[in-house]
Amino acid sequence: MADRIFGEIEGVPVGTTFSTRKEAAAAGIHKPLQAGISGSKDDGADSIAISGGYEDDSDSGDVIIYTGEGGQDDRGRQIADQQLVRGNLALAKSEIDGLPIRVIRGADKKNPYAPESGYRYDGLYLVESHWHDIGKSGFLVYRFRLVKLDSALPPNKLIGDLDLITLSAGTDNPKRASSISQRIIRDSKLGKGIKRLYDYKCQVCSIEIRTNAGLYAEAAHIKPVGKPHNGPDRPENLLCLCPNHHLMLDKGVYMIGDDFSLIGIGGTLTKHPEHQISIEHIRYHRLMFN
Amino acid sequence: MADRIFGEIEGVPVGTTFSTRKEAAAAGIHKPLQAGISGSKDDGADSIAISGGYEDDSDSGDVIIYTGEGGQDDRGRQIADQQLVRGNLALAKSEIDGLPIRVIRGADKKNPYAPESGYRYDGLYLVESHWHDIGKSGFLVYRFRLVKLDSALPPNKLIGDLDLITLSAGTDNPKRASSISQRIIRDSKLGKGIKRLYDYKCQVCSIEIRTNAGLYAEAAHIKPVGKPHNGPDRPENLLCLCPNHHLMLDKGVYMIGDDFSLIGIGGTLTKHPEHQISIEHIRYHRLMFN
Repeated sequence: MADRIFGEIEGVPVGTTFSTRKEAAAAGIHKPLQAGISGSKDDGADSIAISGGYEDDSDSGDVIIYTGEGGQDDRGRQIADQQLVRGNLALAKSEIDGLPIRVIRGADKKNPYAPESGYRYDGLYLVESHWHDIGKSGFLVYRFRLVKLDSALPPNKLIGDLDLITLSAGTDNPKRASSISQRIIRDSKLGKGIKRLYDYKCQVCSIEIRTNAGLYAEAAHIKPVGKPHNGPDRPENLLCLCPNHHLMLDKGVYMIGDDFSLIGIGGTLTKHPEHQISIEHIRYHRLMFN
Repeated sequence: MADRIFGEIEGVPVGTTFSTRKEAAAAGIHKPLQAGISGSKDDGADSIAISGGYEDDSDSGDVIIYTGEGGQDDRGRQIADQQLVRGNLALAKSEIDGLPIRVIRGADKKNPYAPESGYRYDGLYLVESHWHDIGKSGFLVYRFRLVKLDSALPPNKLIGDLDLITLSAGTDNPKRASSISQRIIRDSKLGKGIKRLYDYKCQVCSIEIRTNAGLYAEAAHIKPVGKPHNGPDRPENLLCLCPNHHLMLDKGVYMIGDDFSLIGIGGTLTKHPEHQISIEHIRYHRLMFN
């Protein structure tokens, strides 16, 4: 769709309120009048509405765990499994392409971050990851972790320099639509220990990346750290990987079997005899990210 | 060195001032009394002092272009080429390991970010990249781009969750020394166009990363965007790469010859006939990052 705008809408600052969804749609902030997710599987998603309609959502302001769409009846009850199609696939596409998502929040007494009434545009978020889970109703739901972009970005000065988020008003407007995706690599003494154990070679492909300052590898968590997964930063939850196989682990391109076989890409994970890898965390990853 | 502390020093908040380098050293903020860089090639660098002693430094607050050490005479004049050894190598090691660097600024009338007098602890920075350049004196100098960590991090809440920056007081203290490294992948319509041109296959290794939301690749800038390189976000400065070969390009693990040969890793860059790659930007990268 040529007229899908990713990023800020000119003249609609963060904090703008709307009485109705129709007003928000007219302003170009969130176009669908009913659907929570605006987007297509090819372009990605450009905006979502958080309305309190999903019992599995979790809103902590700068971080939102957003439940995908589908499988609900007319009264909003989850009655079937969700699938990675339509809006859900659009959100996942925005994740891998690093596209910013506009978030509007609707009034919801249970949510301290929601407005008192009506709807409010609350700025840009990035989809950091997605997985599936069994929701409170017992059906499979897709979940998306969104992180607020303002605070996840480098200093404003940088944003200016790099022209990261600019406006796109469609084909008639020559301005670029830019976007950003961000990967944060956490390291620690433990991570360093794991990397040294494997001589900085990837446990999946054995590649050795030699820079002029020494070898480069990443310590990857099998069960993700941070809410809601809360995987531990401990050796049994860490792998020594190259950037490619780190990303592919995080995005569920491959899974690890109980026998350390690499499901989806073939082969077997290299495992040092002193490295106890948690079967529990491997199973968590397999269950959630496949 | 077991007693090298990366990250914050307990009891010394950002903004703490010191009359002398000796006081800053006693507080554990920056241990060397003369050297600008504290660190070793094996551990990485833990702190730097910005003193106005290097004519090639550039300080814009949240972003610092820091000149490496070596090649100066007793009066601080650059009289020889610098090398990637000692402190310079330590800073490059912190870059690839994602270790935070404490920055102290000394009084410098020419620098609006420097204190009026004495020295001030100004918080944690990450080394984002390093390269070499010909300095104002005509000799080769190493340069490091440091980005302030506070503003480059996800929301504070996340920091708490992830325990990203905690204290380490050496071997007697069981607290973890954590660190973070951050890679920002900029995307744009242009980036998307380049990725589509190559069907999301890496121009170096032809790998295709297929996620459940579609293919994943990164649009990489040959001449880096942002100060001081100011490479353009234009097709002739972009490549479609996998995360491994993006990182390796950024870290100078390989260079691209004028004939698109891949110097350092062998082979030839895949080039679509419609993709005009700038020889000028290839040469800039080769000159600066080799």
